Amino acid sequence: MTVHGFSPSGNCHKVRLLLEQLGREYRWVEVRSDDGSTRTPGFIAKNPNGKVPMIELDDGRVLVESNAILHWLAEGTGYLPDDPWQRAQALSWMFFEQYSHEPYIAVARFICGWTPLDSPRRAELPVLRERGRMALAVMERHLQSHDWFTGARYGIADVALFAYTDVAGHGGIGLDQFPCVQAWLERVRSTPGFVPMPAPDTVAMRRIDESG
Amino acid sequence: MTVHGFSPSGNCHKVRLLLEQLGREYRWVEVRSDDGSTRTPGFIAKNPNGKVPMIELDDGRVLVESNAILHWLAEGTGYLPDDPWQRAQALSWMFFEQYSHEPYIAVARFICGWTPLDSPRRAELPVLRERGRMALAVMERHLQSHDWFTGARYGIADVALFAYTDVAGHGGIGLDQFPCVQAWLERVRSTPGFVPMPAPDTVAMRRIDESG
Repeated sequence: MTVHGFSPSGNCHKVRLLLEQLGREYRWVEVRSDDGSTRTPGFIAKNPNGKVPMIELDDGRVLVESNAILHWLAEGTGYLPDDPWQRAQALSWMFFEQYSHEPYIAVARFICGWTPLDSPRRAELPVLRERGRMALAVMERHLQSHDWFTGARYGIADVALFAYTDVAGHGGIGLDQFPCVQAWLERVRSTPGFVPMPAPDTVAMRRIDESG
Repeated sequence: MTVHGFSPSGNCHKVRLLLEQLGREYRWVEVRSDDGSTRTPGFIAKNPNGKVPMIELDDGRVLVESNAILHWLAEGTGYLPDDPWQRAQALSWMFFEQYSHEPYIAVARFICGWTPLDSPRRAELPVLRERGRMALAVMERHLQSHDWFTGARYGIADVALFAYTDVAGHGGIGLDQFPCVQAWLERVRSTPGFVPMPAPDTVAMRRIDESG
């Protein structure tokens, strides 16, 4: 299996993290999502939506959308419960992640690290940060009475939510007000086979540091 | 089962459409999402994310996120394939819908119909419409060689994508350039048990008409 992904992207890292924890073999092909590489004719022929991550099987079939990839990889493993209601709740959190969390927390981080310091997009940051904190508050409330987002055990909803929550600070969204989220992040980091997301490159890190 | 939903919301209508097609009994409780009704303490206690649709079982358990609800309802029925790869592709389209389609096509419609004609949010419409057309182009490309989004048969990915595509015009996004999308909409309307989404009320329809 080949994973096409941009290493500092949380959506891409989700796939890497689960594959590592499953002990699956895979080939990683680096495809930057900030320089047009996901919009070339060759890439668009495989994913008309022009995004990574994308997995490609040896017979050429492709699957896109990070959380759909996680769900497919986890089927039949301990990372997705058997119980239909728990499975539904896990999927619910994964849709929450893509609709109410990632568009704020990941986009704030992208703007801080991967756009110029004078980009007009930086005007979006106050609203993105406010909505990102609203998403974290929803997670905090859940974690006050649950250890995980995937039913009784760590699983793919945790993988999905971990990716960008762990680096929310890159977008200027601190976790001080969210102690249960911080404790959950630490539990995720302690799961067997955990691998951290590669750090942004020095250009991106300098921009993040200068974004306040 | 009780469905808490706002009738002219595509996300809510998805649940109604599938329940009707499955022949399931349910109670519909109207909850407007444009007047704060999903942000009351009573509602937030059930769904901290403050959104409809929400289904509530007779024992009080709740499930949120429209596409997670569809997936749970469809499990074991003909509206979700058995084949793991087809299931994964269906789920991929459902994440596409929530990330790359709904935030543009549904939000453009919401701004046109449910915000005042002088709302500053109307400045967002050109970008929303452009990105909505990009999502429709991705669908058009798929439909040039496939009849459905849920594997070989009509199913929940079609339900998910139908909801807002069918009313894209309310947000000023025409379908003239997308003949395969138009033909697919007609195929969906011809499926057994199909029910159309209730029309917006007269205030919303007048605003839509005046939004050009």
